Amino acid sequence: MKVIIDAFGGDHAPASVLEGCALAINEFDLDIICVGDEEKVRKEAAERHISLEKMEVVHATSVISCNDPPTKIRSTHANSSMAVGLQLLKDGAGDIFISAGSTGALVVGAVLIVGRLEGVKHPAIATFLPSKSNCFLLLDSGATIDCKAETLEQFAVMSTKLMPHLKAPRIGLLNIGVESIKGTGLQRRAFELLAGNSTINFVGNIEPGAAFAGMCDVLVADGFNGNIFLKTIEAASAFVVGELEGAGLTNELAVVARAFDSSRAGGSLLVGLNKLVLKAHGSANAQTIKGAIGQALKVVKGQGLHAGSGNGDRV
Amino acid sequence: MKVIIDAFGGDHAPASVLEGCALAINEFDLDIICVGDEEKVRKEAAERHISLEKMEVVHATSVISCNDPPTKIRSTHANSSMAVGLQLLKDGAGDIFISAGSTGALVVGAVLIVGRLEGVKHPAIATFLPSKSNCFLLLDSGATIDCKAETLEQFAVMSTKLMPHLKAPRIGLLNIGVESIKGTGLQRRAFELLAGNSTINFVGNIEPGAAFAGMCDVLVADGFNGNIFLKTIEAASAFVVGELEGAGLTNELAVVARAFDSSRAGGSLLVGLNKLVLKAHGSANAQTIKGAIGQALKVVKGQGLHAGSGNGDRV
Repeated sequence: MKVIIDAFGGDHAPASVLEGCALAINEFDLDIICVGDEEKVRKEAAERHISLEKMEVVHATSVISCNDPPTKIRSTHANSSMAVGLQLLKDGAGDIFISAGSTGALVVGAVLIVGRLEGVKHPAIATFLPSKSNCFLLLDSGATIDCKAETLEQFAVMSTKLMPHLKAPRIGLLNIGVESIKGTGLQRRAFELLAGNSTINFVGNIEPGAAFAGMCDVLVADGFNGNIFLKTIEAASAFVVGELEGAGLTNELAVVARAFDSSRAGGSLLVGLNKLVLKAHGSANAQTIKGAIGQALKVVKGQGLHAGSGNGDRV
Repeated sequence: MKVIIDAFGGDHAPASVLEGCALAINEFDLDIICVGDEEKVRKEAAERHISLEKMEVVHATSVISCNDPPTKIRSTHANSSMAVGLQLLKDGAGDIFISAGSTGALVVGAVLIVGRLEGVKHPAIATFLPSKSNCFLLLDSGATIDCKAETLEQFAVMSTKLMPHLKAPRIGLLNIGVESIKGTGLQRRAFELLAGNSTINFVGNIEPGAAFAGMCDVLVADGFNGNIFLKTIEAASAFVVGELEGAGLTNELAVVARAFDSSRAGGSLLVGLNKLVLKAHGSANAQTIKGAIGQALKVVKGQGLHAGSGNGDRV
């Protein structure tokens, strides 16, 4: 099994990625291809005493950042670590590609370089979040920003394949109320399509509180609302934890308070592509990168996304 | 100064409302008109030993619930406590109307019965939320679900009048990234309009984390995303607090952890109407109702919404 990883993706790259890879090599049985400026990679590794012996380094001249328009991955950044990594994946050099870099560039690059599954119009990002009963899968958490109702229906259908351990995952639609008339035109039309699709187990509109209460296994949203939802969860819980730490929260409880962080110790899977692409959190440190690699291994082994999420072990 | 209040609005009404009014009468100098089924009000007050001496009770036969289509406030529920209260407000019987009932019905009822300010096309709900530096005003948090870019611009313009203590409130647009191209077509068009409006101090796109970090005074959003944002904050922080309580959080810290609850101890103001209407939280208890009444008094006195919010006292 071979993992291709973007050495220059994320806020703390390349140190976080190289250290994370070293941790993963110690713990898992796998091969790693590290993609990025070879001179910089070797220099960073030497400075941090990270052995590159068990890693293959593939050179890439540039890095595509969050400030670059994502489509530049095919033009000025065609030689970026992300673009080269995706091309390696397409060419069969590895089983899965991981990057903690720009989400937008990764989605655009994956669609343009790796390609979509037949029949899939738009990719989605699938992210696991904790709930009172176990966890739920948010889909889309930011790949396709402008969605139609049909897009949301396709997300729902794709999501069922990510949860082989569930016979009929309960699929909910992120909304501001439970009634079918709630939401904008997008949600109202999506409700009709989802309710009329006999191949899925649609349980209706789900408000944020109901999702955390465990009322669904999959929470379908357009990429914009899904991303607002995800970022608001992170921001609100970080705010509460910050206030508590200011008031003297113990270290023991601080770990509990970071339930949302720990649940995302792995990564989010891009769904609807010809190959496997995993997005690690932009603020990933070495431990997070190791977690993402561990998750990637489980996904490749066909245990589904759930089995691989950090949160899957909570139950 | 006279406050009109919906005796049957909210999950714990009428007990919460009657007890809240009694607390407010003890603390503030004001008159209260309580609207709702008079027999039930007098029975509930007698059972709970709440004196109605200083309250005027105006009879209304029905209650409009969250399950009723909001437009029913003009037909089958034209005699509901909410509709009768709004009519009293329109007729000048009081200075402000407060309800913890259905948000949808309150918005529709306020527009149809009380009327909009000249030139205002859509009302907004203005809610204060805490931030690291102080607090920010979310607008719209759920009044106008289907918004155009022009609607968001009008929300921004209206918001400046709610903050007389700030010379040029920093207005941000809720979005998934800071770049002007981020978001759906709605956010991209709104960014252009806001950036081009010289009467406001637009500071650009604001992600959820930046809002809590104190990067804006006003966060403009369409009613759908604003409501998702608000409900996600409540749900995520409640989830974190729940996990912490399960792990042994002290009572002292539990109070801190409920920063978001306490910040909303008052209510949210409906903006863009001919008269003042305050929405109290649906789960309001007696203390929350008292807080909303206190906030209402400050709003009526022209101190702006900020001065009246529970959160205004945090600084």
